[in-house]
Amino acid sequence: MTDFTLHGYFRSGASYRVRIALNLKGVPYADVFHHLRKGEQREPGFLALNPQGFVPALEAEGDVLTQSLAICEYLDELFPDPPLLPATPLARAKVRAAAQLIACDVHPVQNLRVLKHLREVGLTQDQATAWAARVIGEGLDAFEALIGRQSGPYCFGDRVTLADLCLVPQLGNARRFGVELVWPRILEVERACLALDAFRRAAPENQPDAE
Amino acid sequence: MTDFTLHGYFRSGASYRVRIALNLKGVPYADVFHHLRKGEQREPGFLALNPQGFVPALEAEGDVLTQSLAICEYLDELFPDPPLLPATPLARAKVRAAAQLIACDVHPVQNLRVLKHLREVGLTQDQATAWAARVIGEGLDAFEALIGRQSGPYCFGDRVTLADLCLVPQLGNARRFGVELVWPRILEVERACLALDAFRRAAPENQPDAE
Repeated sequence: MTDFTLHGYFRSGASYRVRIALNLKGVPYADVFHHLRKGEQREPGFLALNPQGFVPALEAEGDVLTQSLAICEYLDELFPDPPLLPATPLARAKVRAAAQLIACDVHPVQNLRVLKHLREVGLTQDQATAWAARVIGEGLDAFEALIGRQSGPYCFGDRVTLADLCLVPQLGNARRFGVELVWPRILEVERACLALDAFRRAAPENQPDAE
Repeated sequence: MTDFTLHGYFRSGASYRVRIALNLKGVPYADVFHHLRKGEQREPGFLALNPQGFVPALEAEGDVLTQSLAICEYLDELFPDPPLLPATPLARAKVRAAAQLIACDVHPVQNLRVLKHLREVGLTQDQATAWAARVIGEGLDAFEALIGRQSGPYCFGDRVTLADLCLVPQLGNARRFGVELVWPRILEVERACLALDAFRRAAPENQPDAE
């Protein structure tokens, strides 16, 4: 019996972020998987937990938390070591901004819900894929510019931060949509992250519900 | 001369959030407006500040901060009174999740950039507007369910939080897209917020660049 239950889906990039955070913090958790392509996140039992019908959701303290970045910051406040954010307000803001660039401006604009919606309003599958690829490409261009000013193996230096937790899952999506990864600093960071057990264990292909 | 310069646009919902935060904290700031419909955010001078080419951006401490929620949390850390987040990790996570529901899953999926993109791939103006209205409606349905469990004049009780800073600007967008506002708790919160000087002074129509 663990204190935390993560509702997720192997291929959900936002669930992947939370899995990395749990692993980095060494927090044991139980998994409940919801197959998004089969619409299991719209079943009444799950909607009672999260009215938005999205994964991830984390059962904790007899309550339910939603939104991956809010969950990661919650875990960071409960289990401060290792920290996911630097110490000064300015440095914290820069890490959060990089994370939000992906979590606000890239991922939700290219996720399954939006692509389905695009098909419903008449776009072809190829047009929907091109949409996703363009959104990801524009976002990663800006992300590369942001972190290009930093040094160190990870996005913001010698420690993994919330920015790395967002970047690595997004690169998985980028590849699925055929985006050519032309960003040297981003690829260098990805290599450093994937050398860590916490990232590898969180990867989609290593989840029990992987297809 | 002030220590903070906000790059924004009167109608940008994300800039509006930051204006409310600055006003609530009583922090003086200088304004620079970029006319998004004229594409001024793509000019080289601004791209040098924010490679993503989005507003808001806040010049602070000789650096540039981007992403509205990251900026609001930065201001909250520098100027803790009044706080924009509650005290316990669980309560903070719930406020952040409500804020992110809007900042990740609603606003970026219906903003000017995406609507322009939809027109480019062949949707009519009416279809693009219907898209925005649907995204907003689904998001506010979930938001109402989240905050319906709370009492008090604001989203999460007796104090304004980051959730209110996201909700009020989003309702302005909802009206612009003709969304019928059918959520009683949301409307009650909006009334309470708009009774505050910090919200009213931040409103789009009260900005010097308002049309």
